[in-house]
Amino acid sequence: MVMNVRGYAAHSAESPLGLFSFIRRDPRPNDVVIDILFSGVCHSDIHNVRNDWGNAKHPMVPGHEIIGRVVEVGSAVSRFKLGDHVGVGCMVDSCQHCGPCGHGLEQYCENGNTLTYNDVDPHDGMPTYGGYSERIVVSDKFVVKVPEGLDLAAAAPLLCAGITTWSPLRHWKVGPGSRVAVVGLGGLGHMALKLAKALGAHVTLFSRSPGKDDDARRLGADRVVISTDKAQMAEVRGQFDLIIDTVPYVHDLNAYVKTLALSGSLVLVGYLGPLQDMLNTGPLVLGRKSVAGSVIGGIAETQEMLDFCGVHGITSDVEVINMQDINEAYERMLKSDVKYRFVIDIASLRA
Amino acid sequence: MVMNVRGYAAHSAESPLGLFSFIRRDPRPNDVVIDILFSGVCHSDIHNVRNDWGNAKHPMVPGHEIIGRVVEVGSAVSRFKLGDHVGVGCMVDSCQHCGPCGHGLEQYCENGNTLTYNDVDPHDGMPTYGGYSERIVVSDKFVVKVPEGLDLAAAAPLLCAGITTWSPLRHWKVGPGSRVAVVGLGGLGHMALKLAKALGAHVTLFSRSPGKDDDARRLGADRVVISTDKAQMAEVRGQFDLIIDTVPYVHDLNAYVKTLALSGSLVLVGYLGPLQDMLNTGPLVLGRKSVAGSVIGGIAETQEMLDFCGVHGITSDVEVINMQDINEAYERMLKSDVKYRFVIDIASLRA
Ligand SMILES: [Zn+2]
Ligand SMILES: [Zn+2]
Ligand SMILES: [Zn+2]
Ligand SMILES: [Zn+2]
Repeated sequence: MVMNVRGYAAHSAESPLGLFSFIRRDPRPNDVVIDILFSGVCHSDIHNVRNDWGNAKHPMVPGHEIIGRVVEVGSAVSRFKLGDHVGVGCMVDSCQHCGPCGHGLEQYCENGNTLTYNDVDPHDGMPTYGGYSERIVVSDKFVVKVPEGLDLAAAAPLLCAGITTWSPLRHWKVGPGSRVAVVGLGGLGHMALKLAKALGAHVTLFSRSPGKDDDARRLGADRVVISTDKAQMAEVRGQFDLIIDTVPYVHDLNAYVKTLALSGSLVLVGYLGPLQDMLNTGPLVLGRKSVAGSVIGGIAETQEMLDFCGVHGITSDVEVINMQDINEAYERMLKSDVKYRFVIDIASLRA
Repeated sequence: MVMNVRGYAAHSAESPLGLFSFIRRDPRPNDVVIDILFSGVCHSDIHNVRNDWGNAKHPMVPGHEIIGRVVEVGSAVSRFKLGDHVGVGCMVDSCQHCGPCGHGLEQYCENGNTLTYNDVDPHDGMPTYGGYSERIVVSDKFVVKVPEGLDLAAAAPLLCAGITTWSPLRHWKVGPGSRVAVVGLGGLGHMALKLAKALGAHVTLFSRSPGKDDDARRLGADRVVISTDKAQMAEVRGQFDLIIDTVPYVHDLNAYVKTLALSGSLVLVGYLGPLQDMLNTGPLVLGRKSVAGSVIGGIAETQEMLDFCGVHGITSDVEVINMQDINEAYERMLKSDVKYRFVIDIASLRA
């Protein structure tokens, strides 16, 4: 098996992505070798490529919403066999012995998990390269099964956008009767609508601009509230048990906190940084409300989410592109011009 | 029964408290008439008297940590009899039909509960007057029983400082194995230490200044961390399942959030207002942490707390004063010169 692999990489924070050849490791006993079929394009790919978070390692092959087919398994692998359709998300390894790892919370590994790209494999010191490539080699513990019947291209974003919204919906125990609101209608937000609805919740979308009604309702929203309209915001005061806030830039939470019900939680999944305006504690204290955060999800939870999506026929709304179109896709994403996720057809890379 | 009652009132935001005579209502069928024995002195009494929150109604008779003896009951009252030792806390009524009231969460009543003082009785439109007085008439639903064996003076602060810290300890499910930290060692903080310890938690006190070790340990702390010492703060990074933050003024939460464990919560019980410095969401998202709030507790929960205190022999550390000393007590409280609660011996008012 040739482990010379082609992918698309950014060679610096300023350069466009282009063809890049590199080596994948020889499979270890617990490794799964996956021919990549589709790779979703996450906003964080752009942030990482452009070094917005200051930790970029170039050349960088992005991509952590990976769907592929098993083409080889190591001698110790029993859960996967050749031909299986599988997924790989944001992580490809973790310490496996800390408290969080022991509880299936590898995303919070105390010793630092290994990210699918822009990281270093702790066993061999090699850089990790992501899904914008023909093939990937991943420890079986970090590979999940794709249920039958899901469109493989549209399933790719479940591996990041899906699990990032699923995990808080589950941790905060959303089910029939829950009143859930979602802030922002992008890759994360549209998955939050679908998943919350399928879990049985009454679902509201907060949108800054009108005109999203039809789309939001099609995706699962029972109601759309224009967050810049004070009268509409007043109408939903004290309504929501859980707000999933997917907004990826600094924003004011105070207006949303007012719409939380008693003991409700607003969970940030898209923004890391200081909160402006200043958070007012009054509504928290007087309504036992919480402002919280959550990042992706664990591996077992990712499998649970995929199985749930299989049963309910849930995938992402995607626009499939060729690998060669990635730089243009980034430009369109920066203008929020995508409904709701680009997915790269990796066949285009092999052509 | 003479319902002409003497108390101490502030006649304006600027004037000291002094003797005041007023009328208590004739008992309704569900009322309990209580001769007040002790009344705790809460920081919020000072804020209310001085109109710090802008809603002061003068003349004002403060006091919402009330312990007394039943001297009369209405015809529909069966839970109390003459001579019972009872308590009254921050509320004397609520709508009794909203969702929160239905769940024993009268402190979050959607239609506005009736506060023990500085409020208006919804049935007769009369002002409510608090515990700095000889006698009070309260609906039986808002009266709790004081278990045998507790010192009555030292039990008074349980009705506000006790329940305010008990409610979040219970809501966030503190028990054996929980790691709890308390910010601030005042009336609330010293109760939080005692209650968390008795619930079986490992308890840490965050203190801004040294010299509190002996007292903190006597009250239940297993450890004292000086919050201004960066090395000590680094040592407790990621340690606490729950932080009860009793600080009553604006302060920076970011250093405390770092000491929360995965999925941990920091609960504000003392401060209402904008947070400075700006709260950083990074640790919330990357550790699924929450910043939350909580206010007093429900009536059933107050009874549960008192019963727990009866079993465990828990009361407040108090300094008993005469009614005539109240203005001096306020001055000392503003300098944090009290360990840890003043309680008025109402016998001094009758003398
Ligand atoms: Zn992503
Ligand atoms: Zn780990
Ligand atoms: Zn109080
Ligand atoms: Zn109510």
